Amino acid sequence: MTTARYDVLGIGNAIVDVLARAEDDFLVRHGMRKGAMTLIDEARATGIYDAMGPAVEISGGSAANTIVGCASLGGRAAFVGKVKDDELGRVFAHDIRAAGVAFDTPPASDGPSTARCYVLVTADGERTMNTYLGAAQDLHPQDIDADAVAGAAITYLEGYLWDPKHAKDAFLKAAAAAHEAKRLVALTLSDAFCVDRWRDEFLGLMRAGTVDLLFANEAELRSLYQTADFDSALAALRREARLAVVTRSEKGCVVVSRDQVLAVPACPVEHVVDTTGAGDLFAAGFLFGLAQGATHERAASLGALAAAEVIQHLGARPQASLKALAQERGLAG
Amino acid sequence: MTTARYDVLGIGNAIVDVLARAEDDFLVRHGMRKGAMTLIDEARATGIYDAMGPAVEISGGSAANTIVGCASLGGRAAFVGKVKDDELGRVFAHDIRAAGVAFDTPPASDGPSTARCYVLVTADGERTMNTYLGAAQDLHPQDIDADAVAGAAITYLEGYLWDPKHAKDAFLKAAAAAHEAKRLVALTLSDAFCVDRWRDEFLGLMRAGTVDLLFANEAELRSLYQTADFDSALAALRREARLAVVTRSEKGCVVVSRDQVLAVPACPVEHVVDTTGAGDLFAAGFLFGLAQGATHERAASLGALAAAEVIQHLGARPQASLKALAQERGLAG
Repeated sequence: MTTARYDVLGIGNAIVDVLARAEDDFLVRHGMRKGAMTLIDEARATGIYDAMGPAVEISGGSAANTIVGCASLGGRAAFVGKVKDDELGRVFAHDIRAAGVAFDTPPASDGPSTARCYVLVTADGERTMNTYLGAAQDLHPQDIDADAVAGAAITYLEGYLWDPKHAKDAFLKAAAAAHEAKRLVALTLSDAFCVDRWRDEFLGLMRAGTVDLLFANEAELRSLYQTADFDSALAALRREARLAVVTRSEKGCVVVSRDQVLAVPACPVEHVVDTTGAGDLFAAGFLFGLAQGATHERAASLGALAAAEVIQHLGARPQASLKALAQERGLAG
Repeated sequence: MTTARYDVLGIGNAIVDVLARAEDDFLVRHGMRKGAMTLIDEARATGIYDAMGPAVEISGGSAANTIVGCASLGGRAAFVGKVKDDELGRVFAHDIRAAGVAFDTPPASDGPSTARCYVLVTADGERTMNTYLGAAQDLHPQDIDADAVAGAAITYLEGYLWDPKHAKDAFLKAAAAAHEAKRLVALTLSDAFCVDRWRDEFLGLMRAGTVDLLFANEAELRSLYQTADFDSALAALRREARLAVVTRSEKGCVVVSRDQVLAVPACPVEHVVDTTGAGDLFAAGFLFGLAQGATHERAASLGALAAAEVIQHLGARPQASLKALAQERGLAG
């Protein structure tokens, strides 16, 4: 195993978020599951967009947000995901490259347009997401550069990737390339309903050792083991996962390995503006810490720090330098 | 003169802002005049976009921001401006309609793409703007619906409109339609360098009575009368303008008419995040107040309130309901 060229390489849906504030009423009227991510077709996308308030366009995508977070912490980072060669595709490519991330996936020249996620943010800061996958679902195994994956200390995959047809194969190709180079593979479960769609396959990935490190929040973990009891789910996870982190919002997180269950507190936040990206940025901090050889505790604290930054403003990518924040808190290097 | 269908109808460049934070160094390196608006061609636009950091796309345009502010205050508002039928054009149209503004200008089906303004926001909250006018410059007199203009209590025009070739004629057609219906015509000088390009024509508009109400900030007023002395410029303005408002940032504003010079304080703001839209939103409050029959003092206070809201966050359009804010401060109805 040679020195890694990247700390973290992420593979995920390349999406531009279209964020607007909304009342709870709006969610009810449009049949949206509050706090969840729902896949929508183009007609539904048009209907939602026509009905929603004035919006802001900000690059998003779960793993993409995580990778931008890694770069903001000072990590060497790369992203693989599919946009179309259209205006929003150029916005996505600009933003991720301008954040210092290597992004070389060629855009699609035809087919559906760049993916958009219509994010409704309610007064409590909760976000409800409606994703039109568009070009993102056309990520194919040939978009995976095995050499780039082999050169990344950790390859990170989002559970949402299990939805698009070919992306699943891209995912498996990347995991194989990573393991061949003796690197780590991490997966986030992404969303409780995503887990509901793909429970057996996600459990299979963990049991087969395709995934070395699992990220889940409480709802996703409960969905994975189909139990309302957090402790039972945690015990089941501990028997199966090599390493896992369960995030619990303001209660912090739990790092689970065979020999230890370690609770790490959240960073206190005065006012939650928009929880979009909280999980993504937690993963950024943890992955960056791990790739840099930090202890699990320090890695989790970096995750908490990054998550705290992103929930204090609109949008799922950091607005401040996370490296500077980590230095202020004595969490850097 | 019948009851107005709209409180304010605005005519201006239909622009999507691409906002990013930047260091002062960046402005120097790229030869940008800090705090100014500079017109750029497509090649320069590409160069700036490639060099700038991760950005956020938010609908903008000076008069468009003003009109959205009027709607947020509870006014009936309409906007006329040209986008292309492309992704950013649809973003602009969505956002202004979702804000409650009537927007019926047909998009261009060919020609240059929807206008973009690359806004660099420095740590002091100052914004430096680089505008690629694209489709916005193809606003023609036939885009002006004389009936709609005749039905608006005030027609509001941005000085930036003097740059695009045909927009000037559209501007004059609208002013004539407004005056024929015994309505008011307002103009903002927009930018000191814009005044420098069109000084004589702007003075001509005021002297000919084409413009009844003028908005200017200190720099624009000084540029108009080519003097460094504010009081001399103000005296000159007082001799020429029927009604004018000069905004002075944290020093508030001065409402100038033949019989009175009235100073109205600014709303104190704890932390200025981004001054983009400050002048636009001041105009929104003043125009809405005037259309509603408020005193000059109350109209100026509404302007100060709206400006204070918009400089406390990124982007040039209000994020809170200005009507609710005005009610809290006892400035409504």
